[in-house]
Amino acid sequence: MQDRARTTRRSLLEAAAHLFVERGYVGTSVNDISARSGKTSGAVYFHYSSKEKLALAVVRERFAAWPHLAAYCATPDVPPLERLVALSFEVARVLCQDVVARAGARLWAERRSIDAVVPTPFAAWTAATTRLLADARSRKELAEEIEPAGAAPALVGAFFGLYSLSDEVAGEEELAARLDQSWRLVLNTLQARPDPAGLIARARARLPAEGPLARGGHWAGSGR
Amino acid sequence: MQDRARTTRRSLLEAAAHLFVERGYVGTSVNDISARSGKTSGAVYFHYSSKEKLALAVVRERFAAWPHLAAYCATPDVPPLERLVALSFEVARVLCQDVVARAGARLWAERRSIDAVVPTPFAAWTAATTRLLADARSRKELAEEIEPAGAAPALVGAFFGLYSLSDEVAGEEELAARLDQSWRLVLNTLQARPDPAGLIARARARLPAEGPLARGGHWAGSGR
Repeated sequence: MQDRARTTRRSLLEAAAHLFVERGYVGTSVNDISARSGKTSGAVYFHYSSKEKLALAVVRERFAAWPHLAAYCATPDVPPLERLVALSFEVARVLCQDVVARAGARLWAERRSIDAVVPTPFAAWTAATTRLLADARSRKELAEEIEPAGAAPALVGAFFGLYSLSDEVAGEEELAARLDQSWRLVLNTLQARPDPAGLIARARARLPAEGPLARGGHWAGSGR
Repeated sequence: MQDRARTTRRSLLEAAAHLFVERGYVGTSVNDISARSGKTSGAVYFHYSSKEKLALAVVRERFAAWPHLAAYCATPDVPPLERLVALSFEVARVLCQDVVARAGARLWAERRSIDAVVPTPFAAWTAATTRLLADARSRKELAEEIEPAGAAPALVGAFFGLYSLSDEVAGEEELAARLDQSWRLVLNTLQARPDPAGLIARARARLPAEGPLARGGHWAGSGR
């Protein structure tokens, strides 16, 4: 029964995510979600109580709180700048492949049309980035002139910008190519011993083919 | 009469912009725009024919086609990277100060809720950035490893990201501080002879206090 409730919640969440991506928050009704999921409207209200609450669940699931983000940041045997770069590519991949993640991003962009406080991911992303830069500092891998708390918001803003343009680019490869270009521009300044191309190649090689964020997998070489 | 029509169109555009910023596209009706502007609904339909068309006019006015962008890019006596940096600060200022610009950005974010093809600014911004980088190359001011057509989309994405977070930061000074941080990260790589702090200071000093994009003013020292 517990399992069945979980399955129902999941299918409602995914049906809603598809509709939010296709039609936006305002263009999607509880009836649409019911029809798409094959569940009753009553099931939507029983499990999520309102369209607003269901939208918030979508945002939280994949956008505001990246699963495993904290765990990735705590993987101590991978160099921190490499972890940061790998994470950025993984977030891009999930945004391209996972409809719940894409719906979360779209709902965030439309947050002022939603009658609820939509959680925002930037504080968590900035804190994670600051921590990684500080780790790099303590390992003498960060250039001396970089101040982690100052650089982190600029990095988060820049990568968020690339992600929010993902609908405007041709697809996952194009988005990855832009990420690659962006990292080349900044790693030269961030790294104590600049080697942008090498670091990007090592970071991307760490990502399992199936995608750790998407599947709850582990880092290659993380030893866990 | 021509003048009066222009004044009416302008006051409808500004009333709509205020409402779009406060309530979003879906939350704003033609009646609201009529009430806020003190004009009749008939005037809205006469001048713009529909809410969609009025929204498109807002996006075009200040977001998709930055006025004078082309002229700024063609100012030959200012070093091109300095023009690029100055332009980025000016766009940030206009987004903070000008309600029509802010409404344009918000409508763009909500574009999938608007029953019309909303013009997108990235092609024009990327073309302008590519041209400035190519100018810098021809003046030997661009680092050898930078390829203008590859770096431009990454830069546009990064700065667009900072702008789209402008609602999330404390205000104009905070946004300018983030722009400053971002330019420090990338200028080090872009400049043939790196001098990020100096270039940023010179670029910002060029911006007239009242803002050239906002007022149609000229560059300091542009000789025009």
